[in-house]
Amino acid sequence: MSPKPESLTLYTYFRSSAAFRVRIALNLKGLKPEQVFVHLRRGEHRDAPYRAINPQAIVPALMHDGETIAQTLAMIEYLEEIAPIPPLLPADARDRARVRRIADIVACEMHPLGNLRVQNYLRDVMGQSEADVLTWHRHWLTLGFDALEALIADDRRTGVFCHGDAPTLADIFLIPQMANARRVEMDLAPYPTLLRIEKAALALPAFIDALPQNQPDAE
Amino acid sequence: MSPKPESLTLYTYFRSSAAFRVRIALNLKGLKPEQVFVHLRRGEHRDAPYRAINPQAIVPALMHDGETIAQTLAMIEYLEEIAPIPPLLPADARDRARVRRIADIVACEMHPLGNLRVQNYLRDVMGQSEADVLTWHRHWLTLGFDALEALIADDRRTGVFCHGDAPTLADIFLIPQMANARRVEMDLAPYPTLLRIEKAALALPAFIDALPQNQPDAE
Repeated sequence: MSPKPESLTLYTYFRSSAAFRVRIALNLKGLKPEQVFVHLRRGEHRDAPYRAINPQAIVPALMHDGETIAQTLAMIEYLEEIAPIPPLLPADARDRARVRRIADIVACEMHPLGNLRVQNYLRDVMGQSEADVLTWHRHWLTLGFDALEALIADDRRTGVFCHGDAPTLADIFLIPQMANARRVEMDLAPYPTLLRIEKAALALPAFIDALPQNQPDAE
Repeated sequence: MSPKPESLTLYTYFRSSAAFRVRIALNLKGLKPEQVFVHLRRGEHRDAPYRAINPQAIVPALMHDGETIAQTLAMIEYLEEIAPIPPLLPADARDRARVRRIADIVACEMHPLGNLRVQNYLRDVMGQSEADVLTWHRHWLTLGFDALEALIADDRRTGVFCHGDAPTLADIFLIPQMANARRVEMDLAPYPTLLRIEKAALALPAFIDALPQNQPDAE
């Protein structure tokens, strides 16, 4: 199966850190899908046209030849399967498990707790203050970054990037999460290995061109 | 690479719904690793012996020939790679993306918000009542099950199980999450398709033998 970029559409929003992941993966693969901008703050994800694409009403999603591909882990594994070069996962099963583990810590333990809809629930339903929501957000980020720094610093397979000297699925998840942490003014100094990897990643066009501020729909 | 079950160890706790997922996958693959029981309520996951295996101090983990494999999505993708028969993912890339999407909705949107440590934070740090924590837990489960029911009921690829007539990664994530919902007494009647699949799954030894109450460390 070969990718046909002309039939590939990305539904995206510049500020979504989940969309940021998928933009990096697409750039690394050299795929340039059509982009449809779904303005989350105007609530366009809840409108009928987008719900027809993704009834879950969350961004991002890919449409490929009439099939909706959603959830960023599944989307990037899909891109890896239809466009294997350059690889975003190493060849060896144990190394693949290591890379997926790093991505999963971000996807399953950090990002879900700092989500906008979760913050809204804490504030609007539970009556928590803005400051307490911020403390919550930073708390889960700290647990996650502590784990990631230990895991990545303490492994001889770490190179310029999380795994070896080329970016993988791990970096694709790590870098947007660090950008997210900066938005809540977290001190990242305790994570020298992660900072070193972030610097290497943000020197590559695939990461630079995926940054929120470099999107056509950025405000 | 062929799996050597004699060198495979599962670190597990009967009540962990993440461990439940991995037990189902191991059973479907016919793998019988050595089991080490880590008693979460006695805090054994925070003790030095387990931290040497998984510094994140979360259960489950697999140890295979000296390598720790953690995070359930990564663990089950690993089992799929080292023991491909019977497959837990379909052959076609789009179908694989569909199955992974279902698993990811559970892993990235439902389970993380009902975690024990999250409940503890809401109660102990944020001062929320037991009832409000329960409402929170059910709120995120409802959003997730609503999405899953729509996605699964409305697709001709759904069969006896989430995808076709044999269990996949999707069922491995769905069934433990439904067990979790029953523990917080959620009404699952609005999800007839999910209930039908659960019934089919719980007729199979691989699922029955993985149930929390059927583990050697069950209390």
